[in-house]
Parts: sequence; structure tokens; C-alpha cells
Amino acid sequence: MAKEITSRAENYSQWYNDIVKKAGLAENSAVRGCMVIKPYGYAIWEKMRDQLDKMFKETGHTNAYFPLFVPKSLFEAEEKNAEGFAKECAVVTHYRLKNNPDQPGKLMIDPDAKLEEELVVRPTSEAIIWNTYRDWIQSYRDLPILINQWANVVRWEMRTRPFLRTAEFLWQEGHTAHATRDEAISEARKMHDVYAVFAETFMAMPVIKGFKTESERFAGADDTYTIEALMQDGKALQAGTSHFLGQNFAKAFNVTFSNENNENEFVWATSWGVSTRLIGGLIMTHSDDDGLVLPPKLAPIQVVIVPIPKPDSALIEKAEEIADGLKSLGISVKIDRDETKRPGFKFAEYEMQGIPVRLGLGKRDLEQNTIEVARRDTKAKMSIGLEVVVPYVEQLLEDIQQNLYIRAKAYRDEHITEVNSFEEFKEVIETKGGFVSAHWDGTPETEEKIKEETKATIRCIPLNAKEEAGKCVYTGKPSTKRVIFAKAY
Amino acid sequence: MAKEITSRAENYSQWYNDIVKKAGLAENSAVRGCMVIKPYGYAIWEKMRDQLDKMFKETGHTNAYFPLFVPKSLFEAEEKNAEGFAKECAVVTHYRLKNNPDQPGKLMIDPDAKLEEELVVRPTSEAIIWNTYRDWIQSYRDLPILINQWANVVRWEMRTRPFLRTAEFLWQEGHTAHATRDEAISEARKMHDVYAVFAETFMAMPVIKGFKTESERFAGADDTYTIEALMQDGKALQAGTSHFLGQNFAKAFNVTFSNENNENEFVWATSWGVSTRLIGGLIMTHSDDDGLVLPPKLAPIQVVIVPIPKPDSALIEKAEEIADGLKSLGISVKIDRDETKRPGFKFAEYEMQGIPVRLGLGKRDLEQNTIEVARRDTKAKMSIGLEVVVPYVEQLLEDIQQNLYIRAKAYRDEHITEVNSFEEFKEVIETKGGFVSAHWDGTPETEEKIKEETKATIRCIPLNAKEEAGKCVYTGKPSTKRVIFAKAY
Repeated sequence: MAKEITSRAENYSQWYNDIVKKAGLAENSAVRGCMVIKPYGYAIWEKMRDQLDKMFKETGHTNAYFPLFVPKSLFEAEEKNAEGFAKECAVVTHYRLKNNPDQPGKLMIDPDAKLEEELVVRPTSEAIIWNTYRDWIQSYRDLPILINQWANVVRWEMRTRPFLRTAEFLWQEGHTAHATRDEAISEARKMHDVYAVFAETFMAMPVIKGFKTESERFAGADDTYTIEALMQDGKALQAGTSHFLGQNFAKAFNVTFSNENNENEFVWATSWGVSTRLIGGLIMTHSDDDGLVLPPKLAPIQVVIVPIPKPDSALIEKAEEIADGLKSLGISVKIDRDETKRPGFKFAEYEMQGIPVRLGLGKRDLEQNTIEVARRDTKAKMSIGLEVVVPYVEQLLEDIQQNLYIRAKAYRDEHITEVNSFEEFKEVIETKGGFVSAHWDGTPETEEKIKEETKATIRCIPLNAKEEAGKCVYTGKPSTKRVIFAKAY
Repeated sequence: MAKEITSRAENYSQWYNDIVKKAGLAENSAVRGCMVIKPYGYAIWEKMRDQLDKMFKETGHTNAYFPLFVPKSLFEAEEKNAEGFAKECAVVTHYRLKNNPDQPGKLMIDPDAKLEEELVVRPTSEAIIWNTYRDWIQSYRDLPILINQWANVVRWEMRTRPFLRTAEFLWQEGHTAHATRDEAISEARKMHDVYAVFAETFMAMPVIKGFKTESERFAGADDTYTIEALMQDGKALQAGTSHFLGQNFAKAFNVTFSNENNENEFVWATSWGVSTRLIGGLIMTHSDDDGLVLPPKLAPIQVVIVPIPKPDSALIEKAEEIADGLKSLGISVKIDRDETKRPGFKFAEYEMQGIPVRLGLGKRDLEQNTIEVARRDTKAKMSIGLEVVVPYVEQLLEDIQQNLYIRAKAYRDEHITEVNSFEEFKEVIETKGGFVSAHWDGTPETEEKIKEETKATIRCIPLNAKEEAGKCVYTGKPSTKRVIFAKAY
């Protein structure tokens, strides 16, 4: 039953949908483009959120909460930002329903309850937050403001996919205010680093750090820093962005401060966010044709113990002893006490759910004082002495975490291809896929033409790009460094 | 500066607003009826949320996330629920804005982007959740479902107050599905107990446990269990409710299961919720004319150490040593290193913020090997030997927690008045306030008349009400137990 998923080779997109469904992560809802995040999917999000929240607090940020709605007049104040999001806004126009006189038992909008000003459901919160910050900031002593918000946002996307692109999604959005340009840039970079560390250390997902070209920037930003990951089908995933917003929002909302010399200046801003999209990235970085593969640091259940063939009291007792030992090390453990399903069925289910380590404990094992340890990443099985199983599993979880990163990085590195002609460019994009490292003349026109002809976009200008004289693959004009192209989610 | 709040005696309502503002808990936003929850207020909510989440998980629940929007056709399916919330719904009618041709730089609703079906911003999630549960439940083996959601909801209230009543608020809503009526009732009662334990043990806020009369029930519930707290102005606050929903939502959404005898039955339901309103209750239970008073278990900062008059290295070193000692016991500590403000100003600020324990460390203290310990609840100050300050503070935090509860309970108990005539009833409600315990004939008509004449409502029929023959204070008709009336928030 759990085995019935489409293979990646057969249909990658269907494979992804099958995992989302069969691992119990999410499902479509009655609302167009909105998903239900099911308990197992939400448990992964909780692990991500708790770790990120810890990292935000360690870097000096506190959480707060701003309204879901943005009055239209505030929404449109920062013109570029408004233009960027206007086409995908859910808009509240009324605040009451009433009985429909023509259809008993049905409701209709009460035309008398039309709002004087429409309310936009936040697609992002710069507008409402900077309108608030105006009252919080008078002097340089009120700066910096380092606030993060965990919230839901709505962007009315036409084509949606669970986690990767949904009309409503959960995210965090940091919004900081600074006295100087340098300090704001440092903040944007610091959070960019936090995202990269989180992606690589916790998600075991290697990322390229870079900044976006002007046409790919966040609407309203002066610079957008991004982390770009590579999925197993050779497409890129923008996994997190951190924006240096300059004084754009301060000017739009008239947020000034008096500096140490008593002069009035506009405030400098950043914003940065990651979302439930990361779960999509997690799935597509590690999983295989048997189901989800989770890095131990983000697995809601790290170890499952399955007494075989049927749980009896001696087996359960031993399982509990092992579970207690693991739990005392902070490892999350489930003991499977279900007597109605066969071991083979259970094993397939736990593989589908991506539980990193499975311990199978049979009567013969108990007699021989051993236990079977199966790791999800390589599917290797080993027989281990019962007296060492707890420290063995502790180490194994670390090994799995590391192995997943190494494996994903090897795949990613193999799929960064340097090309020096447009022919080569097109061939790599069409056949091998992945990241293409190429010279570009720096103009939006060329970027646009390459996108039209190949569907590949500039994912980022890598922070570590080395200075190198070259020629644009498309126009032949001079270029000083390579940028990273790919087809992307 | 921090002292400038209105006294409770002068204007209770203004006193409340002053604390919300001056303690930095929340403020009004540009969106009618929606508040901004500021970092300090949000930190209190995080403490509440984390503790409640732990209690929900310990009682077998998991978290999930359902869409913000409810299509109108689903919203109206359970008629009583729909009727109860229809008058306060924010409704999304369009999914796009466009440039306003008449006003350059301004946006307008794109009339071409009208939704075929309006979307209600959830005021509560029974409809969207039970529409989802239909697909999750086939057999008794799929039951129970024990899910909780942390979310924002919107109810378009006409008169709003920070935390107590806002158009958007944060809450949790549990939604469970069961095979039998008895099991659902047990679940509703269990979560009612969880709320009461949370209120009394963590918020130090005594509550009366009872159930609601038919007219005060949640729209769509067969029974609503409530915890009712008493504020310092003699008004009641409904602090949390747990609903036995019968089969109402199962019938509205056609959610059935086959039982062990292979017969089809409708599923039994509960829902239960508490919200950021609890912060309002916390403020009004303990605070005084100097500002907020927080129970240590929910205080974001439990201890503040203030070196006096100015921090120097010897004082800071000692402060850090004490802080480390406290932190190792899991106590949250702030050291005030600010050299720009006077101690008197700082003390007033920390009193305003309700920090349970303040340690003042001066040079003379250091010479004498003592430290000044000030407790926020009683404002008592003591000089304590430095060598015992850490265990002393640990014990003191427990004493403060307990003292706040005892104090609030004494006030509450003094304000439960048994009355036996309507004259007495009116006099107590008008002068003394608080809970009035009186006989009632059990009819909605009498309940309504008493409400019209006195503004007092039946807060609950206490679970522990003793059987007692009596006469309704309003009609003189026979009654078997007393119920609790009060004016309420």
C-alpha cells in the first residue's frame, strides 16, 4: 500500500504529490490554492520554526504580531511594492453576511456592510509595519528595531502546488529598522547567513548564497540576498530571501529619526523571510522512490521501534528500556504497539514517513541479545548488540544527518556546469539541468531574452563569484564574473 | 514618567488602557479594531502558548493547520453556527487590484477579478475542518481525531478593546472527532479541566467551572463548558470555552463512520479555544496602580538586576554571577546595563512591566555582602545575604506565584454573593458587583428579562452547584440550584 507511489523517473511531479499525500504531510482544501497542513507535515514545520526562532532570538530579535489586513491606502504607499503584489491580492470588501431572502438557509453579502476602504489580506507586511514604526521611532536611541513575526500570508497564485506555491502559506517575516545604511546591510547579510546555516546544518540542504538581479528582486528592495537550492529534477528552489530595503519604506511612510547631531534622517530597513515552502525543498532534496527521507534534526520522530512479529510483554519491556535510553539523550522515539498490521506493512509505512532509524526487535534477537537497526537514508540494515544500541543510534543519527548533506552536496556540485556559449547553455539546461554558471552582460534585456528562449532565470549572482574576464553567453559583451542560471520552481 | 497612569479608582477602563500602552503590550493599528501586539505583549503570549501547547500534547493532541478562508457555501452549512457568526464576518470578494486610471499611483479593485464564491475570513474553523474530516474518517479505526490549531481569526466586532475584544485575534482551537457521545463529552470536559488548571496554576487566576445556558452557548454546540474569572472591577471575564458539539457538524457536513458492527453513524465532535483575551484577564486580575503585575510562571523576564547608582565592573561582575546562578535554575534574568537612566526611573519602569523580582545591587551592598530584593506583588523590600540570594529568589518566585493566586481568590470569593430576592440581586449587581449566586427558573425568557433590567447575564451553571430547593429571584418559580450571574466583558 505504502509502496504505491510514482517513481521519480516516471513522473517527478507526480512523485512529489504522492509523497505529500502518502506521508500525510498536506492535502488540497476546499479553498482554491490553499492547503491543509496535516499533523505530520505540521510537526516538521514546528521543528523548523522552533530552530529558526531560536536562531533569530540568539541574533537579538524579538517576536511581535501585526494585523492580517492592510488598508488599501497603506498598501499602495510604496509604489514598487504595491505594483509587485497588486495582481495577487485577496481583498476584503464587506464585514457582514445576512440571510438571503430568496434562498432560505443561505447567506449573502449584506450590501449595507460595505467597507469605506478595502482591506488587502497581507501578502507581506512591510506596509502595515512601517506605518506602525513611524510612531515608534523618533531618535537614534529608538534604533535598531529588530522584530520578527510568525504569520500567515496570502498571495493569489494561479498555479499552486502543496508547500511550493500556495495561495495561503505560513512564514516568518523579519522587519528591522536602522540608523545607518551599513548597519541595515549588515543585518540583511547576517540573516542571509542564518538562513544558509539553517538550510545546510538542519535541512542538510546545500545552498548557493548570492544576490538577485534587479528584475528578480523583492518589489521595493534595493538588494535581495537569496539562498538557492537544487532539487533532484535539476530545478532550482529559492529557499529564503533577505532584503536590504534602503530608505524606500521610510520615505513612503515618512519614518524619520533625529541622529546624534540632531539632524532628521530617513530610517534604513531590512526584511527577510522563509516559509512552509522549505518543506517542499526538504522533500525534494532527500526523498526517494520509497517515500520521504528526513534529516534527523528535523524529523518529528527520529527512531521507531517495531517489536516483531507481534508485540509481547518481554519485547515491549525491552523496547521501552531502549526508548528510555534514547529519550534521555533527547532523541524522539515511537514504539509501535499496533498488533493489527504485519511488520512488512509497518516497515513500508515508516519508510514512507522518512523516519531516520528503525529498530526491529524480534524474539530471536532478544535471545541473542541483538537488535536490527535500519537506516532510512541508505536502507542499510545491521544487527547490533543490545547493550550498545543506544550510543550506536545516537551516533547513527549524526551520521545520517551528515550523509544526507554530503549526498545532496555531491549531487548539487555535479550539477553546477560552467558554459561558455549559448549553444552549450541551452543544451545543459535542456538535458542535464541544474545550475548553469555563465557570463552575462549585466543587462535586464539579455536576462529577459535568455528567459524567453530557455525558461532559465538568473537565480543569483554568487557572493563568492571570482572576478574573471569573460564574454556574455548571449550577446558576447564583456563580463567580469559568472552568474548562476537555472529553471526554477 | 512610568508613574503617569490613571488609578483604578479614578477610571478603571482608562487604567487598563494605560497599562496596555505603558507596559508596551499592544497598541491600536491603522486597521479598525485590530491591534499590534508589541514584543513584550507577544512574549507573554509565547509563554502562554508554549505551556498550553505542552498540555495539549500531553493529553494526546497534535497540531495541524487549516485554511484562513471558508467558502460561503461551507460556512452556511451548519445553520446555527452560520447564524451566530454571519453578522461579524470579513468577506473576501476579489483576488486582484489594478492601477486606478483616474488616479495615477493609486490602486482599485479589478472588477474582472471577482470571486465566483465569496470567501469568509474564518471567525472559527468548524466548517472548514469538518468538511475536511469527512475525507479522513471512514471507520471507527480512524477515530478519535485529536487536533489543535494555533491561528488568527477575525470577528468584526463593533466595540473593541485591546486583548479583550479585537476584530482579529490569535487563539488556539481544538477540533476533535469521536465514535461515541460519551467519549466526546469526556474530551470536552477534559479540555475544560486543562483550561482551568492553566488559568489557576499558571495565570494564578481563579475560575468558576460551569456550563453555559442555551442562550449563552457557542453557536452550533449542544453544550458549552466555560471557565469564568472575576476582574478587579467586579465584572466577569469568560476566559476559555470547551464545546460538546453533538453530531451537528457531522450532520451538516455528512461525516459518518462505520462502527464495529459495520453500521454507519454520524461522528461526535468537540471544539475548544482560548485566545489572546487571556492577556486581558491576566492584566485585570493582578495589576495595580503602579502598572502590570505578572505571575512568575508567565513573566518573560522573571528577575531584573539593577546595579546602583551606575554599573561599574565590580557590580556588573557580581550581577553576572548572580544571573548565572539563577539561569542555571531555569529562571529568566535581565541585567540592566543602561548608564543613562536614574535608578528611580528604572525601578518605576520595571514595576510598570510587572517583573516579579527586582534585585538592587549597590556598592555598599557589595561591601556588606548583601543585596536588596524587591518583590512586585507586595512591593516589599528585603536585604538578603549575597551567598543565599539565588535559592532565596527561587523560593520567592514560587511564593509570589502562590500569593497572587491566594490574593485573587480571596477577592473573588468575597465577590460571590448569594441573593434570595430580585431587590437584593439588583443592589449587589449595582453596588458591590462580582458574581451573584441566585436561583433561576431555567427559562430563557427570565434570563433575558434579568439581562434587560440589570445587564447581568448568567455566566454559568457551576459544575459543583449543590442541589438546593429554592425560588427563582425573578419569577418565584421553583428552582433546584443556584446559577452565577454577573456583568461581563
